[in-house]
Amino acid sequence: MKYSIGVDFGTLSGRALLVEIETGKEVATAVKNYTHAVMDEYLPDGVTKLPPDWALEHPRDYLEVLAETIPSVLAQANVDPADVVGVSVDFTACTLIPILADGTPLCFLPEYENNPHAYVKLWKHHAAQPQADKINALAREMDPVRLSRYGGKVSSEWLFAKAWQLLDEAPELYDRADKLIEAGDWIVYMLTGAERRNACAAGYKAMWHKGDGYPSKEFFARLDPRLENIVEEKLSPEVYALGGKAGEISEAGAKLCGLLPGTAVGMANIDAHVAVPAAGITTPGRMLMIMGTSTCHMLLGDRESVVPGTCGVVEDGIIGGYFGYEAGQSCVGDHFDWFVKNCIPASYRDEAEARGISIHKLLREKVSTQKPGQSGILALDWWNGNRSVLVDTDLSGLFVGMSLTTKPEELYRALIEGTAFGTRMIIDTFEEYNVPVNELIAAGGIAEKDEMMMQIYADVTKREIRICGSGQACALGSAMFGAVAAGKEKGGYDTIGEAAENMASLKDIVYRPIPENSAIYDKLYAEYKLLHDYFGRGENDCMKRLRAIKREQNA
Amino acid sequence: MKYSIGVDFGTLSGRALLVEIETGKEVATAVKNYTHAVMDEYLPDGVTKLPPDWALEHPRDYLEVLAETIPSVLAQANVDPADVVGVSVDFTACTLIPILADGTPLCFLPEYENNPHAYVKLWKHHAAQPQADKINALAREMDPVRLSRYGGKVSSEWLFAKAWQLLDEAPELYDRADKLIEAGDWIVYMLTGAERRNACAAGYKAMWHKGDGYPSKEFFARLDPRLENIVEEKLSPEVYALGGKAGEISEAGAKLCGLLPGTAVGMANIDAHVAVPAAGITTPGRMLMIMGTSTCHMLLGDRESVVPGTCGVVEDGIIGGYFGYEAGQSCVGDHFDWFVKNCIPASYRDEAEARGISIHKLLREKVSTQKPGQSGILALDWWNGNRSVLVDTDLSGLFVGMSLTTKPEELYRALIEGTAFGTRMIIDTFEEYNVPVNELIAAGGIAEKDEMMMQIYADVTKREIRICGSGQACALGSAMFGAVAAGKEKGGYDTIGEAAENMASLKDIVYRPIPENSAIYDKLYAEYKLLHDYFGRGENDCMKRLRAIKREQNA
Repeated sequence: MKYSIGVDFGTLSGRALLVEIETGKEVATAVKNYTHAVMDEYLPDGVTKLPPDWALEHPRDYLEVLAETIPSVLAQANVDPADVVGVSVDFTACTLIPILADGTPLCFLPEYENNPHAYVKLWKHHAAQPQADKINALAREMDPVRLSRYGGKVSSEWLFAKAWQLLDEAPELYDRADKLIEAGDWIVYMLTGAERRNACAAGYKAMWHKGDGYPSKEFFARLDPRLENIVEEKLSPEVYALGGKAGEISEAGAKLCGLLPGTAVGMANIDAHVAVPAAGITTPGRMLMIMGTSTCHMLLGDRESVVPGTCGVVEDGIIGGYFGYEAGQSCVGDHFDWFVKNCIPASYRDEAEARGISIHKLLREKVSTQKPGQSGILALDWWNGNRSVLVDTDLSGLFVGMSLTTKPEELYRALIEGTAFGTRMIIDTFEEYNVPVNELIAAGGIAEKDEMMMQIYADVTKREIRICGSGQACALGSAMFGAVAAGKEKGGYDTIGEAAENMASLKDIVYRPIPENSAIYDKLYAEYKLLHDYFGRGENDCMKRLRAIKREQNA
Repeated sequence: MKYSIGVDFGTLSGRALLVEIETGKEVATAVKNYTHAVMDEYLPDGVTKLPPDWALEHPRDYLEVLAETIPSVLAQANVDPADVVGVSVDFTACTLIPILADGTPLCFLPEYENNPHAYVKLWKHHAAQPQADKINALAREMDPVRLSRYGGKVSSEWLFAKAWQLLDEAPELYDRADKLIEAGDWIVYMLTGAERRNACAAGYKAMWHKGDGYPSKEFFARLDPRLENIVEEKLSPEVYALGGKAGEISEAGAKLCGLLPGTAVGMANIDAHVAVPAAGITTPGRMLMIMGTSTCHMLLGDRESVVPGTCGVVEDGIIGGYFGYEAGQSCVGDHFDWFVKNCIPASYRDEAEARGISIHKLLREKVSTQKPGQSGILALDWWNGNRSVLVDTDLSGLFVGMSLTTKPEELYRALIEGTAFGTRMIIDTFEEYNVPVNELIAAGGIAEKDEMMMQIYADVTKREIRICGSGQACALGSAMFGAVAAGKEKGGYDTIGEAAENMASLKDIVYRPIPENSAIYDKLYAEYKLLHDYFGRGENDCMKRLRAIKREQNA
């Protein structure tokens, strides 16, 4: 029996998953929480305070994940490392590390250990907004086609904004860094000794395009003369497609993780994107929704369409040979948590406690027998702004339709429905721009647990929804790419399609739209759409003005 | 020392107040809860079930109020009935009783005691909507000027709708009734033996106009041929101005209440309207707001203006010599009760209980230090529809501006502010139609207790607010009208203006607008107004459509 290992690096922990290549059976898993977690107040010295909107991590924590979880899964399953033919990793992105040429992070150097800019800037580091604004302004002028692939706006979370912030605020570290590298690519570098930039992160987070490459030198020079050669100096003009082999584990890599030198290592991938093949999706038409605090939508297409308000389209960015599309809802589960924390009366808490069930379960019980529209309430699901298709963080939440008999569970259900309408808006937008969405596959905690919500999503989107078979789809996806890196000859697979056929699975349950519910939801969605466009597309910028007044009054 | 008594008949109880005429000092008060309260499920037989939207009362309960509370206040204060020179009553309206010529309510007759139509139809009996709809339709065609005095719409609560329902559903009782009479006028009839219809109820609830009288015979005949002579047959063409003497207590009346025969009795009045002189308002420019579960706004003007969306303008309808204007917000305190019941997390309840304070107080504490606009939340205060100035019960509530850091107390404050914006909309509408509103006087529980709310109202309306000196303004107003009924010669006053000068008072506190708050509230009010018009004036009838879907799905 041959095995593959996927390692999924999340925001707070890393997880290794050992998988039987022939069957996709998940044999063992191990999780390591990052020792330093997310650093958003102080550096590890406990003294150096971080400014607002910063979010750093410590790269040593990532090495600890390798050192602990891979030996752990091998030991748990009593598997000989010689039987592990491939390994691959996925990582949050853009999560950026300044390193020396040999891969040493600058924060490992004693002279920089008290300098925040020497650490990893985590994906949700939001302090590079001024740089992002300037990039957007110049891109609108010089490179509008490229910008349109990202819904017309790049984020402060992305690579060039973060890199430029480093240059602006700590030029000596920028100079000292031989490379600025995505954490996923860094792990591959550490394991193999080879620097291989992956197309997924480059495409979705660094404006790279398979045909056009990175933005031009002229573009960077106009941003800042010192950035003119950033691609050659700090990145690498070569970008490698997913599904290929990045290299093999080196002697040094073997010491880091306990696998044998020569084991195949796949290209790194972004965590959400790697889940696509793990949900069995390797061809166009099926959309993956990873549903948690927020939702990430991924979809393959046959050709490059510019779909307004989506997060990006990248050729080979998810599965080689296709255009990978991404969209997102910035607030899904977070809505329900907000609601339960802030809007649930004491009597409900008492009832849930007396019955020994969660508040979420109690609310669903109270409202699951209601018919669509029965509460008269509609919500715009923008408590954390709107990522797709409006790309506007200044939008805010809305409830309409309350009466004196409105119950908390009705507001709760309206929030669930609001997120479903938001998903339908994304699907409709893709289809309007000729990217078909025929079926939905959901993954993540909500998808596995919340039957009422999944049925509502099926009714609202009028599409069948299946649930990803694995509870750790990212790690499974990475294991699949590990098997592909090994190749058939070594006991893996030659393509991700083959790997998906054998290793991916879906649960037996299918949520099918109920026509009479869908008919009502069509009417409610028409109302949602009217309000969506009224508040979201400039007809009444009320939400932005309220936000501006709020900022002013809080200043 | 001479005294006057005011008796205030509310929805659930009646209250007598004994007042020193010279000073307005409130000497004694007594309250009697109605034995049968509001009957909205069963008749007193406990068997006869009432249809939805019905609300009845038992007229015997009103007589019990007279029999218990007037002797009680005399006894408490040890006042000789000979020193009580006048009495007057106010009542909810339209609260309609079918009676025989001698005043006996039909429900006192054994043969009708199981017939719901024989009882008092309370003001909030809402089962005559089909009749009201037909009255509105015909009035739009035949009598648009009259209709415009009521904001373009008469309510199902009003007299002709109720009378017509009686005719439609129980024609034998309609025939048997010699009169259909407002409960306030009935009390006067019982005390004096004289039937005197008061101009306030006739004007505000029965479309009567000082110049034009009641609607024409032709109008009634087109509604229903049997209604052609309703005014002569069931009402009375004569209508009497407020401030006059309705009559004197008869022998029979003396037996009912323990006052001496010959004591002057004032014209009956509507409960809210009678509070106007009790707040010292006897001339134009000062608006009274009676703030409770809902808010009633009353204002005097020099001339008749048609102000869209207000509840009525009636010459002599509040104070003789002026045009009385009324407007209303159908949901004020009810919002906060809804919120506290449905949206307050357990931790807040625990905190309030531990500190021994009310939830309302806790919420106000948490949010009273916030600046206007600091939460970013705006509410449309339409949980129970909008009475003025949109006159639309199908409108519903709205919250906009929520984020993941929004706190319950911020939503609560937004609801308070929403009701203040609703008040400003009413004021602005009056002023737009040339009825000046220079100053506000507030009465009722909220006005007395909630300093934060009153300051918000001052800031939002940009007007000074004073608080009515009496906690029982309605009963005081009636006592003042009792003193006027007696006249100066008998120890009373000749005009309500003189009575107000001597008997009315305001509390020392004045809420003055704080300019920097008003400046922000001007901006927020501009947002409120945009949404008010967008949702309320037909630009997007989303709320109505949601309501229609709700009705359909609940059917």
